[in-house]
Amino acid sequence: MSELKPSQTSVQNRSTRGAKRRFGLALLPALVLSTGAQAIATAPVIATPALLSAQDSDPNKMGWMQGFPPASDKRIKAADGSFFTFPALRYSVSHMRQFMPTVEVSRGIGAPLPLPVSKKLDAAIDNLKFTPWDSKQSMSFADSLANNYTDGMLILHKGEVVYERYFGALAENKKHAAMSVTKSFTGTLAAILVAEGVLDSNKKVAEYVPELKDSAFGDATVRQVMDMTTGLQYSEDYADPNAEIWAYSAAGNPLPKPEGYTGPVGYFEYLMQVKKQGEHGDAFGYKTINSDALGWVISRVTDKSVAELLSEKIWQRLGMEQDAYYQVDELGIPFAGGGLSAGLRDMARFGELIRNQGQWQGEQIIPAAAIKDIQQGGDPEDFAKANYRQLEGWSYRDMWWVTHNKNGAFAARGVHGQTIYIDPTAEMVLVRFASHPVAGNGANDGTSLPAYQAVADYLMKKN
Amino acid sequence: MSELKPSQTSVQNRSTRGAKRRFGLALLPALVLSTGAQAIATAPVIATPALLSAQDSDPNKMGWMQGFPPASDKRIKAADGSFFTFPALRYSVSHMRQFMPTVEVSRGIGAPLPLPVSKKLDAAIDNLKFTPWDSKQSMSFADSLANNYTDGMLILHKGEVVYERYFGALAENKKHAAMSVTKSFTGTLAAILVAEGVLDSNKKVAEYVPELKDSAFGDATVRQVMDMTTGLQYSEDYADPNAEIWAYSAAGNPLPKPEGYTGPVGYFEYLMQVKKQGEHGDAFGYKTINSDALGWVISRVTDKSVAELLSEKIWQRLGMEQDAYYQVDELGIPFAGGGLSAGLRDMARFGELIRNQGQWQGEQIIPAAAIKDIQQGGDPEDFAKANYRQLEGWSYRDMWWVTHNKNGAFAARGVHGQTIYIDPTAEMVLVRFASHPVAGNGANDGTSLPAYQAVADYLMKKN
Repeated sequence: MSELKPSQTSVQNRSTRGAKRRFGLALLPALVLSTGAQAIATAPVIATPALLSAQDSDPNKMGWMQGFPPASDKRIKAADGSFFTFPALRYSVSHMRQFMPTVEVSRGIGAPLPLPVSKKLDAAIDNLKFTPWDSKQSMSFADSLANNYTDGMLILHKGEVVYERYFGALAENKKHAAMSVTKSFTGTLAAILVAEGVLDSNKKVAEYVPELKDSAFGDATVRQVMDMTTGLQYSEDYADPNAEIWAYSAAGNPLPKPEGYTGPVGYFEYLMQVKKQGEHGDAFGYKTINSDALGWVISRVTDKSVAELLSEKIWQRLGMEQDAYYQVDELGIPFAGGGLSAGLRDMARFGELIRNQGQWQGEQIIPAAAIKDIQQGGDPEDFAKANYRQLEGWSYRDMWWVTHNKNGAFAARGVHGQTIYIDPTAEMVLVRFASHPVAGNGANDGTSLPAYQAVADYLMKKN
Repeated sequence: MSELKPSQTSVQNRSTRGAKRRFGLALLPALVLSTGAQAIATAPVIATPALLSAQDSDPNKMGWMQGFPPASDKRIKAADGSFFTFPALRYSVSHMRQFMPTVEVSRGIGAPLPLPVSKKLDAAIDNLKFTPWDSKQSMSFADSLANNYTDGMLILHKGEVVYERYFGALAENKKHAAMSVTKSFTGTLAAILVAEGVLDSNKKVAEYVPELKDSAFGDATVRQVMDMTTGLQYSEDYADPNAEIWAYSAAGNPLPKPEGYTGPVGYFEYLMQVKKQGEHGDAFGYKTINSDALGWVISRVTDKSVAELLSEKIWQRLGMEQDAYYQVDELGIPFAGGGLSAGLRDMARFGELIRNQGQWQGEQIIPAAAIKDIQQGGDPEDFAKANYRQLEGWSYRDMWWVTHNKNGAFAARGVHGQTIYIDPTAEMVLVRFASHPVAGNGANDGTSLPAYQAVADYLMKKN
């Protein structure tokens, strides 16, 4: 979008130019969508003083895609990749299907199961004060929402809605890109299959997917893939035009490949040629390709795509209000590493299912053992090797982030601030969709995680 | 798909090759999807003896897109246009969103309104006999379904389901391309706006859409567009590589335009340069661009896309079970001439709303005057000039086909055999999704319309 000044474009936008040249490809955000990584210690914190505020970048205010037809400076097109640069991405995250092929996660056709509403505490929660990391000034919960470009926030306490707000292009009957929150759905599906005895997490990946035998995944165990402790030559550093992320993005892009393209076609072909780097089992390394490799394993043992399995195991069982959907590669394979879009209220239902040890409105929908496995977390020592400066003592298990804090909170996390944050002690499930301009939770954790803790403290005191 | 033998490809496949060369473009089926036209008298009836039967072309049996990843000879890709050639199209019609960008028609998030089920008459109706046109041998209703590559058939009698069957890739919780049945939704929306006084059908199109002033549409009335009695230089003859349909298809294709493309971008830009041919008001001429011009008028007076308006006026009001969706051009404009996909049961709900004069479960959802206007039909003399040999005495009104038969039946019709067939006298609504290999209802009407009449006769006798 030529009307964007460089100062308004996101970090990822500036960094993709080299990759675009290299691959000669209009990049769809296969991977740009995928990472839920904290900005790691080695990456500089980006100063973005010229960024538009949440209010000023509200997609309705900006007029994106409004009018019949939209004015030429209000159009957003997927083809050149600019649809996922700030501030256009604030529109795009709620309209992913308008830019790319997708497949459905069917809720079935019956009546949704109601999401119980308690006495709403919107005002009380908005006024809660907390102190952001590295700050001496307190901030209100309401201010943290704008600060983090929140598109929707819903909080359940003991299974009842106590807080629900939408901003910008999102509404209760719309969907939003979950990005790397998708990984936690993939990991949960795998954990379910393990608990059901369908999948043996101690087996090597190649036993399930022989096509991966000669890749780095071949001699990794399913468990190592589920916990991302594989040793893979793969970088998701957006600032590096030679990072493997761009080749992966090109492979997964569902648009026709450019003339002369000779790389892998689709996610699975890419996975087959991933090289090993280091040893499996040594350290946590956040790499999206693990989620897609796990998606392949899941599909091989169930003969269902992750979209079909998610529908069967979760979406149809929970009485979801809306269908969800996945972006797909040109072979129709759902992007298990970051392709899910869903409604905020349905994300909350899923979060509550997890908090409730797999029970939903009195029925055991998924095995409690799967949730126990998630919640126990991974090995914090493995995690520490990944140098997440701000996430001390955390671990990663079944593609969930486990805080090991005093409340035992754990979370699904997406790169622009999306989350499903579960606090078992506070009996709280907090779900957020967001479109933060900086692609990395390091940019928003300092005003998010302490805000979530303040709500948890408040809800526990109310008891 | 290289594995297709020429004898198995559809008429439209053979005829598109020239157009592909001419536009240098991977054709998405913007227009291939659009026409609900009867094969007209001047077009030869195509003999297709080598076509696979409905059973043998069942997408599950053929294995399209099955496996992880699908085998190379089982893949269907939108990019080269082959996804809409028989037999692949039998898969594609139920998976349109997997091949292209789409926008949603939201049902909202509440509970669906139940579709009442009467005593099911599946077996009795399957055994009904009728005599196909130009035949001396009778055929059973069940055989007519396979004969016409039916994917789903649902019949309501007095508002209750008496028959419901799914075949191939369709199921009760799936969606199917409605193609030109879409036009009847567009026409109904316009008829509603006219009945509400929001739209004056006597006004010239240019009064609502000044951008169309210098096009053929400029001095046509909205009514002439609604009834397709405009005089437009525009051919939908698939057999002619120079037919305007191909340029329209290229304009509406949401994929990136090929290098050097200088034509119009999006449906609306195309409409602006349509030339006049003949006079408005003289004769019916089935041309998809009327529906998209009407979509533009509708969006201009409501400031909503047809997808948004359909959600607001119909989908959210009827308690639909599933969201529906439209394919879009690269500006995000829904294809009002043929882009809708929806669930069969929801199509039935819509048909019942129309049969019931705009009432749904006791409530007046849309003005009865709009339905009266549809049902009265257009001028059969105008219609006769279009030479539909097999549709003697019919007319076209508000983008519905009106039979003027003794029962006063009228219908929405899609090019591969889709229909919403409403028989007010028999108090019957019959909805069908189909994927007939021949793109033109002339190929299936002879075994469809008399079958529908047989069901109507049976239901009336049962009273």
